[in-house]
Order: sequence, then C-alpha cells, then structure tokens
Amino acid sequence: MQSNDFQGPVSVAPVKGKNKAKVAVLGAGISGLSTAYELERAGYDVVIIEASFRAGGRNMTVRHGDKIDEMGHTRYCQFDQDENLYFNCGPARIPGHHKRLLHYCRALNVPLQIKANSNQLAYIQDEKINGGKPIRQVDYRADANGFLSEMMSKSIDKGAFEQQLSEEDTENFLSYLKAFGSLNEKGKYTGSDRAGSQRDRMLFPPTPKAPMPLHDVFKSDVWRGVSFASQIYDWVEPLMEVKGGMDGIVKGFLRNISSPVELNAQVRKIHNLSDGVEIAYEQAGKLNTIKVDYCFNNIPAYFMAGIENNLSPDYLNALNKFKRGHLFKIGFQMRERFWEKEGIYGGITYTSQDNAQLWYPSHDIHAAKGVMLGAYCWDEKQCARFEAMTPEQRFKYAAQCGENIHPGYSGYIENAVSIPWARMNNQMGCGIHMEKEDWEHCLPILQKPDGRHFMIGDQISQHSGWQEGALAASQQALSQFNQLQASITSSHGAAYVS
Amino acid sequence: MQSNDFQGPVSVAPVKGKNKAKVAVLGAGISGLSTAYELERAGYDVVIIEASFRAGGRNMTVRHGDKIDEMGHTRYCQFDQDENLYFNCGPARIPGHHKRLLHYCRALNVPLQIKANSNQLAYIQDEKINGGKPIRQVDYRADANGFLSEMMSKSIDKGAFEQQLSEEDTENFLSYLKAFGSLNEKGKYTGSDRAGSQRDRMLFPPTPKAPMPLHDVFKSDVWRGVSFASQIYDWVEPLMEVKGGMDGIVKGFLRNISSPVELNAQVRKIHNLSDGVEIAYEQAGKLNTIKVDYCFNNIPAYFMAGIENNLSPDYLNALNKFKRGHLFKIGFQMRERFWEKEGIYGGITYTSQDNAQLWYPSHDIHAAKGVMLGAYCWDEKQCARFEAMTPEQRFKYAAQCGENIHPGYSGYIENAVSIPWARMNNQMGCGIHMEKEDWEHCLPILQKPDGRHFMIGDQISQHSGWQEGALAASQQALSQFNQLQASITSSHGAAYVS
Repeated sequence: MQSNDFQGPVSVAPVKGKNKAKVAVLGAGISGLSTAYELERAGYDVVIIEASFRAGGRNMTVRHGDKIDEMGHTRYCQFDQDENLYFNCGPARIPGHHKRLLHYCRALNVPLQIKANSNQLAYIQDEKINGGKPIRQVDYRADANGFLSEMMSKSIDKGAFEQQLSEEDTENFLSYLKAFGSLNEKGKYTGSDRAGSQRDRMLFPPTPKAPMPLHDVFKSDVWRGVSFASQIYDWVEPLMEVKGGMDGIVKGFLRNISSPVELNAQVRKIHNLSDGVEIAYEQAGKLNTIKVDYCFNNIPAYFMAGIENNLSPDYLNALNKFKRGHLFKIGFQMRERFWEKEGIYGGITYTSQDNAQLWYPSHDIHAAKGVMLGAYCWDEKQCARFEAMTPEQRFKYAAQCGENIHPGYSGYIENAVSIPWARMNNQMGCGIHMEKEDWEHCLPILQKPDGRHFMIGDQISQHSGWQEGALAASQQALSQFNQLQASITSSHGAAYVS
Repeated sequence: MQSNDFQGPVSVAPVKGKNKAKVAVLGAGISGLSTAYELERAGYDVVIIEASFRAGGRNMTVRHGDKIDEMGHTRYCQFDQDENLYFNCGPARIPGHHKRLLHYCRALNVPLQIKANSNQLAYIQDEKINGGKPIRQVDYRADANGFLSEMMSKSIDKGAFEQQLSEEDTENFLSYLKAFGSLNEKGKYTGSDRAGSQRDRMLFPPTPKAPMPLHDVFKSDVWRGVSFASQIYDWVEPLMEVKGGMDGIVKGFLRNISSPVELNAQVRKIHNLSDGVEIAYEQAGKLNTIKVDYCFNNIPAYFMAGIENNLSPDYLNALNKFKRGHLFKIGFQMRERFWEKEGIYGGITYTSQDNAQLWYPSHDIHAAKGVMLGAYCWDEKQCARFEAMTPEQRFKYAAQCGENIHPGYSGYIENAVSIPWARMNNQMGCGIHMEKEDWEHCLPILQKPDGRHFMIGDQISQHSGWQEGALAASQQALSQFNQLQASITSSHGAAYVS
C-alpha cells in the first residue's frame, strides 16, 4: 500500500543475559495488548494493569449476560444466548489497508469475513425532504449522478474549459459523463435503470422511474453525505469484520499472552525514577506499589490529571490538551430480520434524526433473529441528548426514530443495549478532540518517551478511534523503546546489550 | 422492492383426486429444478430429463476431481481437496433485489455470505495509459470525481444553468460538488486523502498524492467502465454468494425434490398431442418414449432445431431467432493469497487485456491458498481467441496477462480450469443474443404455452445469464400452467378441478 509501508511489527531488541527487564503496560486496550504481546515475545517480564473488570478497552462486543458498565446505569445484556446475537460496541469495521491490524488477525488466527458497509438498497431519510419519507440510496445516486452529468455535458459544450481540455479530451470527457450519469442519446438524464425498473425487470423491458425534482436532489445534508461516505479512505469497499464479534482480536491477544493481566486495578501513581518507573495501583481496596524498568501507558490522556506523577511539565502540558470525544451506540435485538424482506442485506441507512444511522447485520443471513444498530452518533449535541437519558428512555427514543424509516420497527425490538462511551467507566470518552495547532505541537512530544515512560494508544496516533491507530502508536513506541534501551546503562546493564 | 413485487412463488393449483398428472421437465438447470420443485409440492408426478452427466446447468461449481465437459477437451479439476478451493464457473453473485432466488435460498436452507465485488483497492490497468502499469481504483476515483467537481464548480459560477437552478439550488449544488470531489477551500482539486496518503497516515498528517494528468483520467475505456460498474443495478453493493460454492442452490433443490432426475438423457423428440405431450429421449444407447400431461422445456432454444417436434410455425420461428452468447472463465488455484498482501480482500481488477477481469476470493480470508478468477470475458472476439486454444494454451496466455498486473503472478499458479461456455457440451453458449425487434416479437410468443408445452429458462426472461431470470421464467410458466390447467377438460379431468 503506497500509504502504509508497514512490513511487519517492530522487532523488539530481545532481552539478553539472565536478568529479565520488567515492563508495566497500563491499560489492556488494543494498544496495550499488542505492546505486551511484542515485549513478551522478545523475552521481557510484562505485567498489564487494567482499571476495568475486562480487557479490550473500546474493543468490546456484548452478548447474553455481559455487563455494561455505564456510570450510574449498570445494565446486563439481555440478548438471547446465541453466538450470532452480539453487538460490537466499539470498532466494527476493518479496511484492507489497515495492515497492522490485519497482520495481527493473521498472526493470532482471528477469522475474518466481509462486512457489507455501503448498501445502495438501504435508505436515506431527511425529515425536510420527500415528506420525511425514506428513499433508497440507489435512487438518489442515479439521480444525483444523472443531473450532475447532464449539467456538466451542457456546460462543456460551451467550451468552458477549452484551455484545459483538448478536443480529444473533451470527447473522452463527454463519453465519460454519458456513462457516469447514464444519459440518453441526447445527453439528457431522464431516469435510469440503474435504480431498477417500475415493472418487473425480469419479465418486462426496463422502465425507469422518473427522476426526483432537481431542487430536492442536492438539498439535503444527509443525502449529500451519503454520496461520498464510501469514498472516505477508511470506508472504501470492501470492509471486513471478525467472525463472531470484533473482540475476537482481544481474545486472540489474550490466548497468546502469558503475562498477568491485573483487572479492576486502578493506577494511582506513576513516578519516573533514574533507573525505572514506580507504579502504584489500587486493587480490591489495597494499594500495590511495583517498580519496573519501563512503563507503557495506555490510560486515556484526560485521566492523567487525576494520577499522581512526576512527568515533565512539557509532557504534562501536552497531556492536558486532550479532550475526550463523544460517541453513542444502541444495539437492538430484533425478533425478525425484517430488513432482509426489503432487500437489505447489511449496510447502513442514514437519517437526519438523532439516531443518525441504522446498521443491518450482514452475517448470519436469513436467520430467525438479528442484532442491528439502532443509533450511532458522534455529534456532541446528538450524543448529549442520548447521554442525558436513562437507557430505557434512549431505547424508546431510538425506536421512535426508527419508525420513520421502517414502519412497525418498534414492534420487532426484543431488548437493547446502549453504549455512551463518554459515560462508560474507565473510558469516559472515545476518540480525541484537539485544536489543530495544539495537535501539531503536542503529538510529537507524546510520541517520545518521558524518562522510561512511553505513551501509547490510538490517542497519540493521527487516527484516534481506530484500532489501526492504536497499533501504530504501539509500534512507534516500541521503536522508541529500542532506541532508548540501546542507549541506557542501567542496573540491569548486562540484560540490555542489543 | 419497487421494481419487483414478488411476494412468493406462484401457488400451483394442486392435483385433486386420485390420478396424478404427469409432467416432464426437460433440463435440470435452475429454471427446470425450481419448476419441478413447485410442481412436486403441488402433488404432480414429475420426471426431470437432463442431457448432461450432472444437474445444475450453468450453475456449476468445480472442486477437486470434477469433470469439465468441454467438447474435445475433457479435463478434470486438479484443485487440492479442500472445501474452500472451488470455482464458480457460472453465476457467482446475488444482489439483494433478486427476491426469487433469495426466496429459494431461504426455503431450501442454502447458507449465504457477503461477497466483495467492488474493491477500490484493486487495480485498473490499460496498456495505453500510465505506461501500462496498473493503478488502484481508489486513486482513479478520487481524481475523476475531483476533476469533474472542479470543472463543474467553475462552470456553475458562470450561471450556465440559471434557468434550472435557483440561488439556493446553486449553493446546495456547489456544496454537494465540494463534498463529492473533495475540493479544497478554493474549489480546486489538488489530490485527496480519499486515496490515502503518501506518508503513513496513522502517524503523520495526510499528504495526498498529486493527481494524475487530466488528459489520462478520462481517456481509458477500461477506467471509464470501472467508474460505473458498481452502479449497474445487478452489481450494486452489497452482493452475496452461497457459502461453499454457488451449486449449494442446486444441491438445495435436489435435497428437496424426490422426483427422478434422469441424467445423460438427451431429448430426441417433443410431440404435442391433443391430451398431452410425447417425449422421446436417448439414454445409455436406448431410446425411451414417455407420454406426459405437460412438458416444461428448459433446453437451450438454439438446440431445438435438432430435436424432432411438431411445435407451431410461429413458435418454431421464434425459437430459431435465439443466438447463443459467449462467455469464458478461467480459475487458477494459487499457492499463496498474494493479493491480500497488497491489501486486496476480494473484488475485481479490470484490464484492457483479453483476460478482462481478475476476481479475488473474499471467503476464507488469510488461508494458505485460494482459487481466483484469472479471466472473465463475454466479448465475442476475446472469447473466440480463448476458445480457439487448448486449455493449456489458455492458462499460459491468461498467466502472461496477469503478470502485467501482479508481477510474479505465474509463479503462484498451481493448477487451473477453463470454462468456455460456448464449447461446453449440452450448453454450447451462455446468455442470449437477439435483435431488439426480434426480441420484442419473439419473447411474448415463447412466454405462452404451445399446446401443453411451456418454454422455461433464463433464455425467455428479460435477464438471460442470471439465475433470477431463470426463476422468473419458471414462475411465469407456472402461472400460465395454472390458467391452462383450469381450462382443460382432459382424460384426467377430475384431477384438475382448481
């Protein structure tokens, strides 16, 4: 991939001699787990300290009986006990160019499958347009491309771009436009069989529907957004998912790590020493203090203000700039896969309502039931409205929104989970917000160690909110580690010859 | 689906009384199998007569040891014995709006999965452009959309469409164009991070590549085609496939049919009688003559000239207009899934070379080996070149073509199959070609019975070459059957009260 020359993980300089250097990894999210995995393979003595009752961080898949640890609203997932009824609360998609993540899926034997993400037969719905009724994306795309091409064709006839385009270029461009917009012989867009046919196209010649009013086509923000959603580089088709749930990656790491993972262990203190790092954490009401040679810190940066530390002022200043992002999801267990009867097999419906997106599962096709996503927003105001509600109020609200897309929607809902990441204990956010200039200043500082302390996590990548960012951060910290280690003469000196 | 109001298969009027009416179905392709299935469920006494050694027609999946019955070039598939190493020689994709086929998949418990069809990380390659080197589709799309939007924005500023667009419309349209083409603040296209970044985008801010020369962008027929391939209604994302191979549908029908399927049985004669149909077929050197009450005929229309019959002159004249289509495929077993290392997980590469398309399997991700499609053409001239070769010559030629897309391609090939449908015994073609006016004249004739003889098969649908067309033809013949049956007073009279 031209944009990612990753050829494999950083080869961590191995421990040599008898004394094993000790490393603490704070936080058992994807960045912490991969860091621990690589260090353990190189022979280090690793301990992972995790504040939550579970490993994985935001890589979290819930099934029957799982605890949903929202501040003040602890709930348990009521989905039926069925391996196909699960909900990915955090990451849910993997593009083919996320090479680090794909490397680990391969190395850890995590099975993948194609996930339908873009679905042209799913809907877009904007309350301001078409009387608020949903329309199929394929209809919108045909009309938008058709009108665009027709208008462009008319314009190019006028020689508007004669300086840029030779006669041959113009001819090629016109031919491109005709194909792109499905124009008729006269260069007009009059509807297209790319959006199907009014009569059964298997038995009768195609009779395209009439186009929407031109006025409507380009009016809606939602519709506009849909037209390029699958053009975003991280969402280019095809996307993948882990068979059985995204936490297959967490399980893959845990299967291949023998280092202890201390759960329910909240870090209270991080002190850089001249020859190591002292860490205190609270577990089962007891304060434990350990001394390690190195520390990799995956704790959300905005929590660091509450942890006693002696990090340098520049480092601390940078950490303090991190603002937590908001992200909200609802998963509904549906008694019937009603969407498949509408020809929708996976993918996303977009709406101008607060629930923002509906996702239909694309695995376990034609099964009796399915878990679909009933809300997915990251706009702060939309999130705030959901965050202020109880889980039960959220379900009711999202169900009402769904009715405007699929009449009868509420009647299919058997039970639900809601995940407001900004209210989830030990996370309290998802993704990072920062002013661009702060970002340019802070990131380079935090991508270097402070003493023997390394920050990791998607938070210090350019791609927060994605597992690939978490792995990139881990990888870059490990290459910094190699450099630092090579330059240190420590009490373990003999152990570090590289 | 607005374009297909299929709500379930035709309910065939059941046999009543003691005497079971006898029906012959000629040809065990998808149309024949579904016809037999529905008639059997309604209580009819059905026999299926199939010329080939196997059922399924062009729904054909080959695996280790399977016979490839090409005229003059009988071969056996040498793929490893592995349930994931198979090749769909005929249909390979199912869109969400092919409701008839999806109905049968559900009814027959045929497991489906999402198939990656469009892949923006796969290539397009045209020998005339970019020095013949392949480029990623995502690069092409970003540039094509970018240039198109920039040019359109410039044009609309000039008020070229003032009559059509209000001020508000124009503003909306400009905003749409900016999003569509990923234009900068000045409305210019200068490359886009939608095609990735020159530096690792996980650790450094995105730095888009420079666009291609404008001259190249719209020049290539191949590239132009790619830009709208996934807009064709039958190819809209997402597409599906049968887990384990498309012939899972054939197996599904056969599991649910108890009527005899006579294989290696070539029809020699079809005679309409006043109260039934007489059919003679040759099997194991012996001529068998049977008399049935009704006949459903799935034999390729262009074979009918060689079968003794007493069909009406109009009917025969219509049958004689059918010209067989050409379609050619190669499947290569690859010792390694090299494409996945390039970030390609399924989908299609398009090339101006004779092999036309490469398809990468999207199931069994990260396995050791995979079967990919190494050629797929339906252009008559391209097909003719492959058809004139021996299988071994075809493999060599397609391997050479592949080298221009994936250097080292030939070295991965372990063994291969080739399927020239126009040379496959008992098929000798795929899809139908006919002048439009002939089509309009002939199709309505053949969509009605001649006596008690009904034509079926994708050939008499508007959608030849698709299983959905085959099922639509079967369904419409069965509704004709209901009508005819209701009007007949036959020797079995009592059995037909509807």
